Amino acid sequence: MTRIAFLVVAVAAVAGVVASLTPRSGYTDEQGSPIYGVTIPPGYRDWKLIAVSEIAAGDKSQLRAEFGNDIAIKAFLEGKLPFPDGSIVIAHHWMKESSPENDKVLAMVPMVAGLDSPKSFVPGSFVNMQIMVKDSKKYAASGGWGFADFKDGKPGDEALTKTCFPCHEPAKAHDYVYTRYAP
Amino acid sequence: MTRIAFLVVAVAAVAGVVASLTPRSGYTDEQGSPIYGVTIPPGYRDWKLIAVSEIAAGDKSQLRAEFGNDIAIKAFLEGKLPFPDGSIVIAHHWMKESSPENDKVLAMVPMVAGLDSPKSFVPGSFVNMQIMVKDSKKYAASGGWGFADFKDGKPGDEALTKTCFPCHEPAKAHDYVYTRYAP
Repeated sequence: MTRIAFLVVAVAAVAGVVASLTPRSGYTDEQGSPIYGVTIPPGYRDWKLIAVSEIAAGDKSQLRAEFGNDIAIKAFLEGKLPFPDGSIVIAHHWMKESSPENDKVLAMVPMVAGLDSPKSFVPGSFVNMQIMVKDSKKYAASGGWGFADFKDGKPGDEALTKTCFPCHEPAKAHDYVYTRYAP
Repeated sequence: MTRIAFLVVAVAAVAGVVASLTPRSGYTDEQGSPIYGVTIPPGYRDWKLIAVSEIAAGDKSQLRAEFGNDIAIKAFLEGKLPFPDGSIVIAHHWMKESSPENDKVLAMVPMVAGLDSPKSFVPGSFVNMQIMVKDSKKYAASGGWGFADFKDGKPGDEALTKTCFPCHEPAKAHDYVYTRYAP
């Protein structure tokens, strides 16, 4: 490669990195989480889906989607543990709401996919999102993971962020990640 | 553009189309659905997520993810109705299972994201997937949509496939699509 061609490639690579750090529109706060300095990766809502889940407490529930960047998805699919540096796992949480519109239709269909008289639930308001970023050196004190919990585009305070790692410690055998890939 | 360059681009474009029609590994049956001839789009599990949902019947439930190809996602984000030709919407269904592993951890945390003593639910066995493909001319008799319901890689029979459009007809005002984009 000539020196000029090399320079062009290098400049393009740096420009690519800078572009990928541009905050996602809708998230005006570029502040990182306390302790870890983890920020919201732009465009993560379009990342590949690892799994969905639900957290239910009486009549209040959350529907959840877990997204992974390409490094994390590859590790999930290959069953590779620990996750390699650069892996990012994001949990995206909505309140769960019933859907009267869908229920009206379901009422006309006695059986749906083996379920008898089912009811429909859909994502309601967006609650919060949680991020895990793998950097085994930078975050050596917390299992190699940096954590963040964002609500309305703002990171949770230090007291909240301090609870992330202890809550993930019981999942040490799966490199502190609870989510499994849903095929 | 010279004629040769144009040819190279044209051949590459055709090759791209052929490559994208290669059946996804894991789905050995390349048979399309009855009536509509809709097949499983390869790699759809990695498509962008439109929303998640749940269908619940007593103690039996399904967790669901709805994926869209880029044409469908663009239409959802722009609020564009009817969906343009080429839009594909896929619903991917798992049985919902409780997660004793996650519940053990949740038991140590009294409040999770505003929920009191919550329980965790995750995707269990994969049930089926349903496909809607927009082609306003080819599928003019069914609102411009072709339908399919695949289980174990095999399309449902004609009797099942006949139920798709009537079930989507009440959603005519939203171009027969129930799923809304979850932000």
